[in-house]
Amino acid sequence: MWPSLFTPQTVALVGSVGEGKLGYYLLRQMLDGGFPPARLAVVNPKGQGALGVSGYPSVAEVGRPIDLAIIVTPAATVPAVLEECAQAGARAAVVITAGFSEVGNVAGEEAIREVVRKTGIRIVGPNCAGIVNTHHALFPTLETRPPAGGVSLIAQSGAVGGVFLAWAREHGLGIAKFVSYGNGADLTERDFLEYLAEDPETQVVALYIEEVTEGRDFLRALSACTRRKPVIVIKAGRTEAGRRATLSHTGSMAGADAVYDAALRQCGALRVTSLEEMFDLCLGFTALPPVRGRRVVIVTNSGGPGVLAADWAEEVGLTVTEPSPTLRERLSAFLPPYCSLSNPIDLTVEGTEEGYRRTLTTVLEEYDAALALNIAPAYLDSVPLARGVVQAARESGKPVAAAFLPGPIVAEAVHYLREQGIPNFATGERAVAALARLVKYYTGQHSTMWHSASHRALPQTDFPASLLEPDLMAWLQAKGIPVPAFRTARSADEAVTAAREIGYPVVMKVVSPQILHKSELGGVILGIADDEAVRAGFERLAEIAARRDFRGVVLYPFIRDAQEVLVGLFRDPQFGPVVAFGAGGIYTELLQDVALRVAPVDRDEALAMIGETRVAALLTGARGRPPGDMDALADLIARVSDLPFLYPDIAEMDLNPVFVLPRGVLVGDVRLIAGTSSPDSP
Amino acid sequence: MWPSLFTPQTVALVGSVGEGKLGYYLLRQMLDGGFPPARLAVVNPKGQGALGVSGYPSVAEVGRPIDLAIIVTPAATVPAVLEECAQAGARAAVVITAGFSEVGNVAGEEAIREVVRKTGIRIVGPNCAGIVNTHHALFPTLETRPPAGGVSLIAQSGAVGGVFLAWAREHGLGIAKFVSYGNGADLTERDFLEYLAEDPETQVVALYIEEVTEGRDFLRALSACTRRKPVIVIKAGRTEAGRRATLSHTGSMAGADAVYDAALRQCGALRVTSLEEMFDLCLGFTALPPVRGRRVVIVTNSGGPGVLAADWAEEVGLTVTEPSPTLRERLSAFLPPYCSLSNPIDLTVEGTEEGYRRTLTTVLEEYDAALALNIAPAYLDSVPLARGVVQAARESGKPVAAAFLPGPIVAEAVHYLREQGIPNFATGERAVAALARLVKYYTGQHSTMWHSASHRALPQTDFPASLLEPDLMAWLQAKGIPVPAFRTARSADEAVTAAREIGYPVVMKVVSPQILHKSELGGVILGIADDEAVRAGFERLAEIAARRDFRGVVLYPFIRDAQEVLVGLFRDPQFGPVVAFGAGGIYTELLQDVALRVAPVDRDEALAMIGETRVAALLTGARGRPPGDMDALADLIARVSDLPFLYPDIAEMDLNPVFVLPRGVLVGDVRLIAGTSSPDSP
Repeated sequence: MWPSLFTPQTVALVGSVGEGKLGYYLLRQMLDGGFPPARLAVVNPKGQGALGVSGYPSVAEVGRPIDLAIIVTPAATVPAVLEECAQAGARAAVVITAGFSEVGNVAGEEAIREVVRKTGIRIVGPNCAGIVNTHHALFPTLETRPPAGGVSLIAQSGAVGGVFLAWAREHGLGIAKFVSYGNGADLTERDFLEYLAEDPETQVVALYIEEVTEGRDFLRALSACTRRKPVIVIKAGRTEAGRRATLSHTGSMAGADAVYDAALRQCGALRVTSLEEMFDLCLGFTALPPVRGRRVVIVTNSGGPGVLAADWAEEVGLTVTEPSPTLRERLSAFLPPYCSLSNPIDLTVEGTEEGYRRTLTTVLEEYDAALALNIAPAYLDSVPLARGVVQAARESGKPVAAAFLPGPIVAEAVHYLREQGIPNFATGERAVAALARLVKYYTGQHSTMWHSASHRALPQTDFPASLLEPDLMAWLQAKGIPVPAFRTARSADEAVTAAREIGYPVVMKVVSPQILHKSELGGVILGIADDEAVRAGFERLAEIAARRDFRGVVLYPFIRDAQEVLVGLFRDPQFGPVVAFGAGGIYTELLQDVALRVAPVDRDEALAMIGETRVAALLTGARGRPPGDMDALADLIARVSDLPFLYPDIAEMDLNPVFVLPRGVLVGDVRLIAGTSSPDSP
Repeated sequence: MWPSLFTPQTVALVGSVGEGKLGYYLLRQMLDGGFPPARLAVVNPKGQGALGVSGYPSVAEVGRPIDLAIIVTPAATVPAVLEECAQAGARAAVVITAGFSEVGNVAGEEAIREVVRKTGIRIVGPNCAGIVNTHHALFPTLETRPPAGGVSLIAQSGAVGGVFLAWAREHGLGIAKFVSYGNGADLTERDFLEYLAEDPETQVVALYIEEVTEGRDFLRALSACTRRKPVIVIKAGRTEAGRRATLSHTGSMAGADAVYDAALRQCGALRVTSLEEMFDLCLGFTALPPVRGRRVVIVTNSGGPGVLAADWAEEVGLTVTEPSPTLRERLSAFLPPYCSLSNPIDLTVEGTEEGYRRTLTTVLEEYDAALALNIAPAYLDSVPLARGVVQAARESGKPVAAAFLPGPIVAEAVHYLREQGIPNFATGERAVAALARLVKYYTGQHSTMWHSASHRALPQTDFPASLLEPDLMAWLQAKGIPVPAFRTARSADEAVTAAREIGYPVVMKVVSPQILHKSELGGVILGIADDEAVRAGFERLAEIAARRDFRGVVLYPFIRDAQEVLVGLFRDPQFGPVVAFGAGGIYTELLQDVALRVAPVDRDEALAMIGETRVAALLTGARGRPPGDMDALADLIARVSDLPFLYPDIAEMDLNPVFVLPRGVLVGDVRLIAGTSSPDSP
């Protein structure tokens, strides 16, 4: 099917091609894009052709095999038209026509799916803006025809594609393929990711999604693609407002943004939040060699913009270190004395072609990448400076990004840079922001491949006896998860015995299925020092549980000087089980310091999670404290992340606090919510 | 002097005007900008004129009074030329010539200052890119001539001005005045702020600075300006790298960025970090009526870009709430059924002039502002949609921002929007980001006027007897700052007596001028419960201080369950005394959760500081804790902020922890570093 879609020998446009109609516009786009008219056919009831392309009353009557059909007929006719196309041998169709599930016409969309199931024809759309394959002169799209190159764009939204392709044309970014798949009745982002992963003409994939429907399949496809080439993702509908807009736009629910964020990172995708950022990264990835380190040098001809770019470079994680004394000496041998030899290196408005060339070539022996800034006054010609930059990039073989501005003054120089393969960014800030993401990518800070779970669910009988704290603690212990030595007691006497067995000081908590938030009710007593205090405490807890279902108390040793953290589990509607790690106790909410992963994770991934949080700083032995046992903590997170696969009945679980000790960890409290598994769960 | 500078009757250009020379270019700029040639004169040794403007061998020989001199002669001649201009009656001069302090020629710059002192002539520059007054057709600048309007730009860096003015011309942003003041040998940002505050043609001030030299005078001028009109500031050289670049660029030291940030906010300035953001805010402030609230509605003709804009709107603090049922009903009465009536309101690609007009007019009855998005496909004309937007803005009187894109397709519509006073932003995201800043400004969340201190320093004798903890505590107490009841002891017996007086449990700390970091050395013992533990503790502390200058111990009551915070003081080289508030104890560094203000602050400002931190959430009674005494805390911060003015010997002071109790606060520890006052201190 893919050759029929992206490299068809013959294309039929099905629909009206009267002037002013979409069909006419699409036909003109295809012809203007260079697709041979002889390999095109137009099909509509009147058999009307246009623009030198012959018309036929039906696909069957074209008399040649059709690979790809482009459909712009009214919504009601689409299923029948598709069936006709399939019978005539077409293996793929792009349905531009709107008026399906996006306006509530679910039956119409189901009818399309039925044709797919019955005939095997594969569909892009409906309600889409078409496809592009620049390397095959194939432009059945409503959007701007972009120049050819290595970026392939997959966009749920046609308008997003329209903006991106228009920018691509304006700024000379080369596109390989473009797909707007609209409602995604058949082919979706998953299929295109799989295809583009293998497509030799695609160097970089840019993906715009608002929601995905089968989360774990999507992650598998995404992960497979990121192993082959950079994948840059915009996931829109991030906020509540955005999500509502998504709802009305596509009729399916968007997952919580934080989970998307974790999942995308986990798969090695580069998430960005704006089209401009996506564009800049595509430019950087296709036009620059790999950026192997963070040390960037800025060569400029004016102070202010260089300072702004340096500020931003440090902000986004690059280092703008000073040139070494040796390097300064070498530079001062050929640069005029008024040039500033710190980084940014300021050649001043007197900067020349040779100045840019030689300076860049020299400094790139020490630095990982360079930004060549030129803020051109109207009275100077920038083309020679561009030549110097191009030569330096060639001689050094290192990544050189340019920011020649302002636009109207440097148009000719920018055109030259582009033709010579040097990416020119809108500002120095945008250039260094792109470089920083490239460094992260090339230095392998993107994650390893996401792997789905292969666990088999354990029998129901292995589930905890009840969801009361002592039963859950016992169950955790049986699963190999470390919990403190604990005892339960139904009377003050039993409590005293238990406390002595544990050893003073102890902690005592009320047990009742009707008390969920023990702390808030005063149901937790810390640091109990003797028998008398145990008795008094028991009475107090019994009183708190009076008129509730009182099941006695649970006692623990009182653990001091341990760092408290949280390990949690929940189910996301898109991605199923998610594991969480973060600051514990009162700091959970205060810091909002939580790392997420789609479960399960192994110990390495768990260590990476810990490293993402701020609380990690407290675990490494800050301020004279002993460092916490990271390995034991990572092991706990990994074990917890397996549980929802072994026990599909776990809907949510919180271990909070978990005490991190110099040797080992201990679960201080547990809450578990059982529930029917969501449809997406394994 | 200001009329001579910005509205001169006669201007002399002093320097060579041979073709290709800067003087020639400047003369052409002035003539092309519409300054009458008859009111121009050229002065150079040969008396050579150009482009129809007469030349004279000296300023004196021009034979008419000269208001303003534009100087492009070699650096060595500049002081003499200035003196000649002053003698001929010129009251202001713009020195374009470079080659002064920026390349180490400090003497040359001092010679310029000497002429200023002697003759009273005022100078812009040297090493600058000139000035602009569009409303007087005055363009003696190397940069692009922008269209006339309400934005005035002050930029240390000429290149930054160049980029901004080129964008202004490209995108139709109206400029009132522009000053590039280069090395600022005489007039600086302070003077221009004072002038522009009163300038009726300036609606908005945009300021680019890399550093300021007299911090408190600058803040006074800035604060006075922000009271009259919005001031948008880029402070570059934020990071270490940026700062180094600043150093080499201007030869003076940049203050720590966090202090700049606090100081700018304190003065009501709007800080931005990129030129694009500055540009967008200038566009918003000059083209939109006041934005009175956060509820924004997005009206679009395509899904994806609307979702992206909604995401971003929520991200930057706007609310994209759904239309009320009434509103939806009113909309559904005239909009086609396929339109989405949630927010964003999607008119789809079928959106019309009347659709935009009526939808916007209707929804703006409920919302505070609107974003009109149009993502145009190449086959549709966007001008009618622009007309609908313009009409709706007029009818509603509410702020309507536009984002018509992509550029090449909507050029005509954007031109129309601009002519009709509707600002068009590069993307929907940039539009809502600008709206969000406007809301903050207009809803008065910018701070009140900064007021400098009017305290008189107290006599030296009032300074603490020593910097040992007990002496400092006693001194704080005498200043009305609440400290716990404390006792000192030189022997174990004295310590027991003291502990009994305080009441168990107590805290005991070692006292020694040679021990600064007590905790790290084990010099602090918490929760001592009885006489025996006091004796043991005393011995331990005495041992720690063995072979050091042991001055006994200090004892305090053991305070539990209080929130620990930090209140600090330090001196900034640019701004003098700065007061800090933040999380205390180990969280100070972990959270980096500190609010700063240039001192002094009053209690209201202190409350605002507290509110900026995350630790504030712990003070409001989270998780069943009693709320902390905010008033007492604010009072403490205000009192502390006065101290450096009363005691100029205070270089730094840390109160950490400060215990915040349900009633009152108590200082738990104090460190003070005395030192010579910096030159900037009051």
